[in-house]
Amino acid sequence: MPPAQAPTLAAPEETAGEDRRLAFRDAMARLAAAVTIVTTDGPGGRAGFAATAVCSVSDNPPTLIVCLNRGSSAYPAVKANQAVCVNVLSADHAELSRLFGGKTPVDERFAAATWSTSPTGCPRLEGALASFDCRIRSVADGNTHDVLFCEVEDIHSQTEGQALVYFDRGYKIV
Amino acid sequence: MPPAQAPTLAAPEETAGEDRRLAFRDAMARLAAAVTIVTTDGPGGRAGFAATAVCSVSDNPPTLIVCLNRGSSAYPAVKANQAVCVNVLSADHAELSRLFGGKTPVDERFAAATWSTSPTGCPRLEGALASFDCRIRSVADGNTHDVLFCEVEDIHSQTEGQALVYFDRGYKIV
Repeated sequence: MPPAQAPTLAAPEETAGEDRRLAFRDAMARLAAAVTIVTTDGPGGRAGFAATAVCSVSDNPPTLIVCLNRGSSAYPAVKANQAVCVNVLSADHAELSRLFGGKTPVDERFAAATWSTSPTGCPRLEGALASFDCRIRSVADGNTHDVLFCEVEDIHSQTEGQALVYFDRGYKIV
Repeated sequence: MPPAQAPTLAAPEETAGEDRRLAFRDAMARLAAAVTIVTTDGPGGRAGFAATAVCSVSDNPPTLIVCLNRGSSAYPAVKANQAVCVNVLSADHAELSRLFGGKTPVDERFAAATWSTSPTGCPRLEGALASFDCRIRSVADGNTHDVLFCEVEDIHSQTEGQALVYFDRGYKIV
């Protein structure tokens, strides 16, 4: 962090903003979350990314929210395809999550697991605890992120298996 | 489930819709989530509810999403107050979560724990892993739910402690 007396590096309000972002990230590390891989395919090409900012909105119609960083490598493909498959990771998927959360090229990411094709045409992960195949129905403005309202058109789920959870900046199993 | 040949009980499309909702709920049970208690206070009165549909949207400005059922007893107070405190529960808060997720009267809910008052005037839970004090900046339509975009104005967090997680329709600890 630059010293407060270095205005050429950061104005005081910028430093305060940066401090607030760091405090927010530290506190968010205390909010445990399931790890998912969100995939897409179609006219915009195939892509996928690891996501923890996923939650249920409504069961009527069944709808999920997915928060997507506008700077993500998957962003153009998701926007073009208007469909995603949200794959909920199981306990043995930590390495796959790392691949989909890093800088690994798309083909290498997908080569690391087995996929089928969902009704919307998106890759569905074999062995996921659950997969929600969705059409994007609307998008809300989340400043740095798009908040995708995803209507669920097809569901696969397993009744057995432990979950991969991200908490305290590390993977846990429940 | 009513038999398919009983149209006086449910039209086929209604049965299909109900089947889809049940499948969605079963699959959502496989998406682990941190348990939070979301509180509010102000002109609309004090209220609070247990929530798992909470996620981070952006760190610039720090913003959370909270999905709130329009039929929730806390709904009128949240709408009137336009402020919430999102308290992330620790491993020993399962009983508190049950109180805030059931039909217990408001005063009994709050009597079961110790609270301070956040800068926006909402109850902040002592011993929470993290507390995000927020103003509601906008609301998106989630059909049965309001999707609240909550800008974080004040943060408290602990670096230690295990988390309460809801998975497979039960409480787990990570």
